Amino acid sequence: MAFYMRAVAIVYFSANNHTHLMAEAISEGVQKAGHQAELLRITGDQMSEGRWKDDAVMEKLNAADAIVFGSPTYMGGVAAQFKAFIDAASEVWFAQGWKDKIAAGFTHSSSLSGDKQGTLIYMAINAAQHSMTWINAGDMPSHYLGKSDGINRLGAFMGVMGQSPMVSGDEEAQLDAGDRLTCVSFGDRIAKATQRWMAAEE
Amino acid sequence: MAFYMRAVAIVYFSANNHTHLMAEAISEGVQKAGHQAELLRITGDQMSEGRWKDDAVMEKLNAADAIVFGSPTYMGGVAAQFKAFIDAASEVWFAQGWKDKIAAGFTHSSSLSGDKQGTLIYMAINAAQHSMTWINAGDMPSHYLGKSDGINRLGAFMGVMGQSPMVSGDEEAQLDAGDRLTCVSFGDRIAKATQRWMAAEE
Amino acid sequence: MAFYMRAVAIVYFSANNHTHLMAEAISEGVQKAGHQAELLRITGDQMSEGRWKDDAVMEKLNAADAIVFGSPTYMGGVAAQFKAFIDAASEVWFAQGWKDKIAAGFTHSSSLSGDKQGTLIYMAINAAQHSMTWINAGDMPSHYLGKSDGINRLGAFMGVMGQSPMVSGDEEAQLDAGDRLTCVSFGDRIAKATQRWMAAEE
Amino acid sequence: MAFYMRAVAIVYFSANNHTHLMAEAISEGVQKAGHQAELLRITGDQMSEGRWKDDAVMEKLNAADAIVFGSPTYMGGVAAQFKAFIDAASEVWFAQGWKDKIAAGFTHSSSLSGDKQGTLIYMAINAAQHSMTWINAGDMPSHYLGKSDGINRLGAFMGVMGQSPMVSGDEEAQLDAGDRLTCVSFGDRIAKATQRWMAAEE
Repeated sequence: MAFYMRAVAIVYFSANNHTHLMAEAISEGVQKAGHQAELLRITGDQMSEGRWKDDAVMEKLNAADAIVFGSPTYMGGVAAQFKAFIDAASEVWFAQGWKDKIAAGFTHSSSLSGDKQGTLIYMAINAAQHSMTWINAGDMPSHYLGKSDGINRLGAFMGVMGQSPMVSGDEEAQLDAGDRLTCVSFGDRIAKATQRWMAAEE
Repeated sequence: MAFYMRAVAIVYFSANNHTHLMAEAISEGVQKAGHQAELLRITGDQMSEGRWKDDAVMEKLNAADAIVFGSPTYMGGVAAQFKAFIDAASEVWFAQGWKDKIAAGFTHSSSLSGDKQGTLIYMAINAAQHSMTWINAGDMPSHYLGKSDGINRLGAFMGVMGQSPMVSGDEEAQLDAGDRLTCVSFGDRIAKATQRWMAAEE
Repeated sequence: MAFYMRAVAIVYFSANNHTHLMAEAISEGVQKAGHQAELLRITGDQMSEGRWKDDAVMEKLNAADAIVFGSPTYMGGVAAQFKAFIDAASEVWFAQGWKDKIAAGFTHSSSLSGDKQGTLIYMAINAAQHSMTWINAGDMPSHYLGKSDGINRLGAFMGVMGQSPMVSGDEEAQLDAGDRLTCVSFGDRIAKATQRWMAAEE
Repeated sequence: MAFYMRAVAIVYFSANNHTHLMAEAISEGVQKAGHQAELLRITGDQMSEGRWKDDAVMEKLNAADAIVFGSPTYMGGVAAQFKAFIDAASEVWFAQGWKDKIAAGFTHSSSLSGDKQGTLIYMAINAAQHSMTWINAGDMPSHYLGKSDGINRLGAFMGVMGQSPMVSGDEEAQLDAGDRLTCVSFGDRIAKATQRWMAAEE
C-alpha cells in the first residue's frame, strides 16, 4: 500500500507537567513511525465560567486522522479542565464529526493504581459517543516476559498510564523511564494503526 | 434511639434545569423523613480559568452529615462544571475531611440508558476517595412488582437516574412523573440511612 | 482496494434467547455487507467445575478477523458462563494471540438502563487486555434525528444494547423491533470496519 | 451504645491462594475489632454446567450483618467461579434479601494496576443491585503521609487491592507485607462500620 503521512493530534491537560512529558513521548513515537504529531495543550485561559473554547484547536482536531486524549487522574477522573474541552466538543458529537477517526488515551497520577483505570475507561466512553475507533495499549507488562525495561510496568491495557511521586513545581517533574518507553511505544502503535485504518480510504 | 435532625446537602450542577428538579424532589423526600435538606447549586460564575471556588458552599458541605452529588450526564460523564467542584474538594480529600460522611448520587440525560451508569460509577469512585459511605438507590424497578408508578423505571442501582427529552429552554424542563417519585423515595432513603449511620455517634 | 470476504465470529451466551436473537440480527448485518458471520453459542455443557473448554470454538475464534462478544447483563455484569469462556481465553491472552483483531460487544437485559453499560465496558476492558481494536456502536439515537425506527433507542455507544420484558420461556422471547434494526446496522458496521482494517494487510 | 458481636461473612474465590491470604488478613482485622468473621471459599466443585449452588453458604450469607466480596482479577474482571456465585444470588436479589446489609470488596492480581479497579467497581455495582451499603477502603496511601508501612501502597479506594508476582503453586503464594496490613486495617474498618450501622437497629 502507498504510504501517506498521517496526522495524530494529542490533546491533553497537564497541571504539573507529568502528563505533558507523556504527551511528548507519545509524540516522539508517532514521529519515529514516520507520521506527524501535534501537541495541543488545554489551558485554563481557554476557559470562561467553566466552559472551554478554542476554535484553532478544534479545527486541528477536526482535520486530524487520530486524536489521542490525555489527562492526569484527579479525584478518580479526568481533570475538570480536560472535561470542559470534552463538553465543548459535544457540538461535534451531535454532528458525529469525528466518526471513524482513530482514538486512544493516556493518564498519570501519583499512586500505582490510583483509579487511573477509571480515567482510561472514561476516555473510551467519550470516544464511543463520537463513534471513533479505539486503539488499546498493545504492550504486555514486559516483566511477564522477563524483561526489565519497565514497559507497561503498571499493567494498563485500555491506554497508557504513568506514575510519579508528587512534586512541588513543574520544573521538578520527570517521568519514570519505563513509563517513558511505554509512551514512545504507544505513539508508534497509534501511528501505525492510523496508517492501517486510513490506507483503505485512499 | 433518640431522633436528631440530620443535615443532607445536595450539591449539583444543572444546565437546563432537569437535574435541578431532581435535586428538589430528593430534597422533598429528605424533608418528609423529618430531616434538613440544603440545595447547593454549582454555577459558572463560581469558576475562574476552569477552577471552582466557593468557601460558603464548602463550609456547608463540611458541616453536613450527608452529601448527595448530582450532575447531568454530558458526553458520558459528569459536567465539567461539576468536576471543577470535585477537583476543588481535593484539599478536603487530602485531609480526609469528609471521611465517614454518607454519600449518594443522581444524574439525568435525554436518552434511556445514555451512559448514565458511568456517571453514577464516577460519583461512587469520588466518594470512595473521600472514604465516604455510599448509599445505593434502594428501589427495585416497580414494574417488576406489577406496579405502574414508574419508580426506578430505568433500572438504576448505584444512584438515581432521570431521563427527559431535550428542551430548548429552562422553563420547559419537566421531570417524568416516575423519575420524580424515584427521587422523593431516594431522599427519604438517604435521610433515614444518615439518621441510622449517625445515631451510634450520639 | 480488493474485496476479500472477512470472517466475523459472534461468541455469546444466551439463557432465555434474547441475546441469541441479537446475535442472529448482527449476523444478518454482517452477511448483508457481503461478509461471513459465524454464531458460536456458549453452553453450560462446555463447562466443568466452573471452567470452560471447547477447542473447536477456540480454533474458529483464532481464525476469525473479528470477534463480537455477547452476553446478557446478569447482576450488573456478563453471565458467569460467558466469563468462564473469557477466563479460558487467558492462555491466548498471554500469547497475545488475538492482538489486532477487531472486537465489538452487545448485551441485553430486562430494564431500560439496567447496568448494561457496565457490561459493555467490561467487554471493552477484556478486548483491551487482548490488544484488540474496539469498534463502537456507531448509530446515534435515531429519535434525536426525528426518526421513529427505534435505532439506538436506548442510547448506547460502546456497543449495542437490547431490552425486553422478562419471559417465562425461550419460545416467548422476541426482540424489540428497534433493537433488532440496531443489531443489523451494527453487524454491517463491524463487517465494514473489519474489511477496512484488514485491507492494508493484503 | 451497647456492644453486640457482629457477623462478617467473607465470600471469595481464590485460585492460587493470594486472595485467600487477603481474606484471612481481613478476617484477622474483623476479629481484632471484637467481631466474628467467617471465611466462605467458593470452589469449583460447587458448580455444575457453569451454575453455582451451595445452600449452606447461602444461609450463612443471609444471616450475616456484612458481606465482604473477594476475587482475583482475571481478564479485567472477577473470576468466572465468583461470578457463578453472584449469579446464583440473583434469587436473593429479586427478593432484595440482602437489602441494607453492609458490603465491601477486595481483589488481587499480579500487576500493579492491572485493571483491578474495574473488579472493585463491579463488586460495588453488584452490591448496588442488592441495595447494600458500601464501605470504601478508608486508608490513604501511607507514603503520602511519610510512612513506609506499605498501607494502601497501590492507591485503591473502592476496596482493597493486593498485588504479588505470579507463582507456580499455591504453597508459594505470599502477600506483600503492606498489602497484608491494608487487609487487616480494612477488616477492622468493616467490622466497626457494621457495628455502627447495626447499632441503631437494636
